Amino acid sequence: MRQKIILREVGLRDGLQIHSTFMPTDDKLAWITAEAATGISEIEVTSYVPPKLIPQFADSEAVTAGALAIPGLTASALVPNLRGAQRGIELGVHKLNFVMSVSRTHNMKNVRRSPEESIADFRAIVDLIRSQPEGRRPVISGGLSTALGCSYEGRVAVSQVIDYAVQLLEAGAQELQVADTVGYADPVQVRNLFKPLLAEVGNVPVAAHFHDTRGTGLANVSAALDCGITMFDASLAGLGGCPFAPGASGNIVMEDLCFMLDSMGLDTGVDLEKLVQVRQFIAAALPTIAMQGALAKAGLPRNYEFAAHRVR
Amino acid sequence: MRQKIILREVGLRDGLQIHSTFMPTDDKLAWITAEAATGISEIEVTSYVPPKLIPQFADSEAVTAGALAIPGLTASALVPNLRGAQRGIELGVHKLNFVMSVSRTHNMKNVRRSPEESIADFRAIVDLIRSQPEGRRPVISGGLSTALGCSYEGRVAVSQVIDYAVQLLEAGAQELQVADTVGYADPVQVRNLFKPLLAEVGNVPVAAHFHDTRGTGLANVSAALDCGITMFDASLAGLGGCPFAPGASGNIVMEDLCFMLDSMGLDTGVDLEKLVQVRQFIAAALPTIAMQGALAKAGLPRNYEFAAHRVR
Repeated sequence: MRQKIILREVGLRDGLQIHSTFMPTDDKLAWITAEAATGISEIEVTSYVPPKLIPQFADSEAVTAGALAIPGLTASALVPNLRGAQRGIELGVHKLNFVMSVSRTHNMKNVRRSPEESIADFRAIVDLIRSQPEGRRPVISGGLSTALGCSYEGRVAVSQVIDYAVQLLEAGAQELQVADTVGYADPVQVRNLFKPLLAEVGNVPVAAHFHDTRGTGLANVSAALDCGITMFDASLAGLGGCPFAPGASGNIVMEDLCFMLDSMGLDTGVDLEKLVQVRQFIAAALPTIAMQGALAKAGLPRNYEFAAHRVR
Repeated sequence: MRQKIILREVGLRDGLQIHSTFMPTDDKLAWITAEAATGISEIEVTSYVPPKLIPQFADSEAVTAGALAIPGLTASALVPNLRGAQRGIELGVHKLNFVMSVSRTHNMKNVRRSPEESIADFRAIVDLIRSQPEGRRPVISGGLSTALGCSYEGRVAVSQVIDYAVQLLEAGAQELQVADTVGYADPVQVRNLFKPLLAEVGNVPVAAHFHDTRGTGLANVSAALDCGITMFDASLAGLGGCPFAPGASGNIVMEDLCFMLDSMGLDTGVDLEKLVQVRQFIAAALPTIAMQGALAKAGLPRNYEFAAHRVR
């Protein structure tokens, strides 16, 4: 049996949020629908933040409804606070991705909360979910941003990441998402964080969220795989970027990630050739945005044998 | 003690050879001089092939002479055959990088030789070197191209790579260079090749030469480090490409590689900030060529602490 890997598309949220060009709702839903059809089983479709803060997500209700109508797809959304979680529960989204930063400064700048206040918010969100009737309770994920470095504070202590991870789990997180938000990590850092973290949190699913800001994204994925991580975030065409570095890469490129994993013999469940075609929805809707990605330029290796078809 | 890593610049050869725009000799030497000053200790400065085949290397004599005048730099050059080796010996270059392809079809297309004929050529080159007076004998490296996949034949057998590696060593190779010429490799393939290869060849230095054609270049470096490889080829700004895929990436990006290694705490001996500045020589001389590289766009992480200065 090949190891199954869960890939989660975050381009609709983490990719689009830094772009001021509004992607029309129909284009977002065409993208989500097409990518879900390639076998990507989970997509972070939007963020429940006030539209005046991020106009890109003004259509979060329509996008959520459209995504929930796609059979088999897990539709998740980012929630920065209790109000966002309320909205997600009302809309019936499958999973709430709560996010807080390990770096105190980053958390203050990003959500105007101390980490302690964010943990308290998280507890309130879990209480809210548990107060819902069964069948209306979304999965709750605890996200730790800047877990491998911070653009304000620099390096971040492994012990601090683990401490918050444990607090989120004790508060009721059903899974964790650990993010190199600003693309600072290298394979040694990844191993130094994920090995003790996984030893601490046991069997709770942990997703790794890497950015390719300095070119190390897929190397970090490989190091995380070595630690036992089997769930990764990425964005098609690497949509995203860095607000502090114009032209810099953002999230790791979904189709390059998917190629590397398939080539390594892992089971992504994704039709790689179809996946590359989905780039066209981004290109058509956002023609001025730089699209990253090596596979789309180079194509598959000659005589490439997909992992599913290889003789074992 | 931090592990020392030897980085070898191959942009002047592997990078420039696919570009028809001639880089003026003075610009090549300005690039070599500036990059040597950053701490890069070995540069493949040219290729001894007939100028009618690759006009880019018509100035190989002047480039070699200029590079040999730089104190502390090991100047190497590619030689495809005995004639090229003769030329290198006449010019007094420090190291000859002989190259043959593990894939029979690729070797026939590239140098019009069967692998057996290339091995015979290599023996003749070693004989020629040994017939020189002491002090005029260049180091001889045996290079195996398409060792991780071939654009004609697809996957390449590990046993075949090891077989040719052993033949090159028995014929007198003082080091080996193992190349993923067309950017097909993933970290699993890298480990599956380099672990048994290093077990077989013992203490002979082995350089890994990766391309980033499908985005896996630095992940492959990390996997090769795990196997014990400590010598890597790369090109500044990823100069190079793929003749079959316009716009595709070529060699792994030297400055991104250097950042990842430094971040991992390894000792490259290179001044990373100076290295990024050397990109300007390529940009000025070849303004129409696409320059790759994430670090140059994003900059170093905030509060980045160079490995040499970190508290241990």
